Amino acid sequence: MRLYIGLVHYPVYNKNNQTIASAITTIDLHDIARVARTYDVKRFFVITPLKDQQVLAERVKKHWILGYGAQYNSLRKEALELVTIVSYLESAIDDIADLEGELPLLIATDASIQKNRNISYEQARTLIQDGRVVILIFGTAWGLDEVIINHADYVLAPILGRAGYNHLSVRTAAGIILDRLVGS
Amino acid sequence: MRLYIGLVHYPVYNKNNQTIASAITTIDLHDIARVARTYDVKRFFVITPLKDQQVLAERVKKHWILGYGAQYNSLRKEALELVTIVSYLESAIDDIADLEGELPLLIATDASIQKNRNISYEQARTLIQDGRVVILIFGTAWGLDEVIINHADYVLAPILGRAGYNHLSVRTAAGIILDRLVGS
Repeated sequence: MRLYIGLVHYPVYNKNNQTIASAITTIDLHDIARVARTYDVKRFFVITPLKDQQVLAERVKKHWILGYGAQYNSLRKEALELVTIVSYLESAIDDIADLEGELPLLIATDASIQKNRNISYEQARTLIQDGRVVILIFGTAWGLDEVIINHADYVLAPILGRAGYNHLSVRTAAGIILDRLVGS
Repeated sequence: MRLYIGLVHYPVYNKNNQTIASAITTIDLHDIARVARTYDVKRFFVITPLKDQQVLAERVKKHWILGYGAQYNSLRKEALELVTIVSYLESAIDDIADLEGELPLLIATDASIQKNRNISYEQARTLIQDGRVVILIFGTAWGLDEVIINHADYVLAPILGRAGYNHLSVRTAAGIILDRLVGS
């Protein structure tokens, strides 16, 4: 399996549909790193161009990998070791190309239905199981900017529950999506 | 569907395997309430005997249902309206018996394998789809005390990923489990 994930903080939408760079939510790093470790994802890219936010993310990572956190909870260390902080999605794609010797397929996630562009969970599962190099990306705040959605090779179908309510946290959505795509 | 969920703060284990009452994590209330709303769960019981923690949970709930939060984000209101704060698991079971006219089946979740006691996701899915009244409970901190595990009608099989790592946050685990049990 050659699966990577990315959490995008820029460009994303705010509540008023404006393009912004969102702040890091440290609990996202913990929860999604644990999901990545559970489902054998190769790297979890935290993507933000804001230098102070990169410093914050690095500090969280170091505390748990090298600092007191590593002694306190070595299981958290195993998860946070997967975190790689980069400025732009392009940098993550370049890193993957270097590691794998080929460009990854870019699969975006979105809470709304993208007409004629959605790939099903089964189709995405097959791509991953066939050994394709894939980066699956999640948006923070009110979701990925359409520049990224349009740039993606595929857009994964949204999680539809039973009640027409589609407003999970990105932490929860990442867990459910990874379980659907690569869970046993 | 007559499905209820509960988040148990007592009795649970701490890191040293001692029975404790854990503190409320407010993000658990938000994330799990959104999961409950997504998957059409009838109520989300937050279970803690600690009065100050009940006050905290009530304050979070009120802010989003009646306070400024309700205007700011009505979708969060819809989710947090499902939250009911009670002192003990028995109180949640009594509430459900009053509402449904019968006692619920108690299904516990646990990160470790309970030999000879585990129910599969398929079996649990069938019970729920057959219209049985069910309360599914999640432990905070290092998991549900064995007193509760032993008292349960069933213990759901743990989430096994692909890497032998089984340390998701309870927020993420709740999302994945509900998706497996009642997702489409």
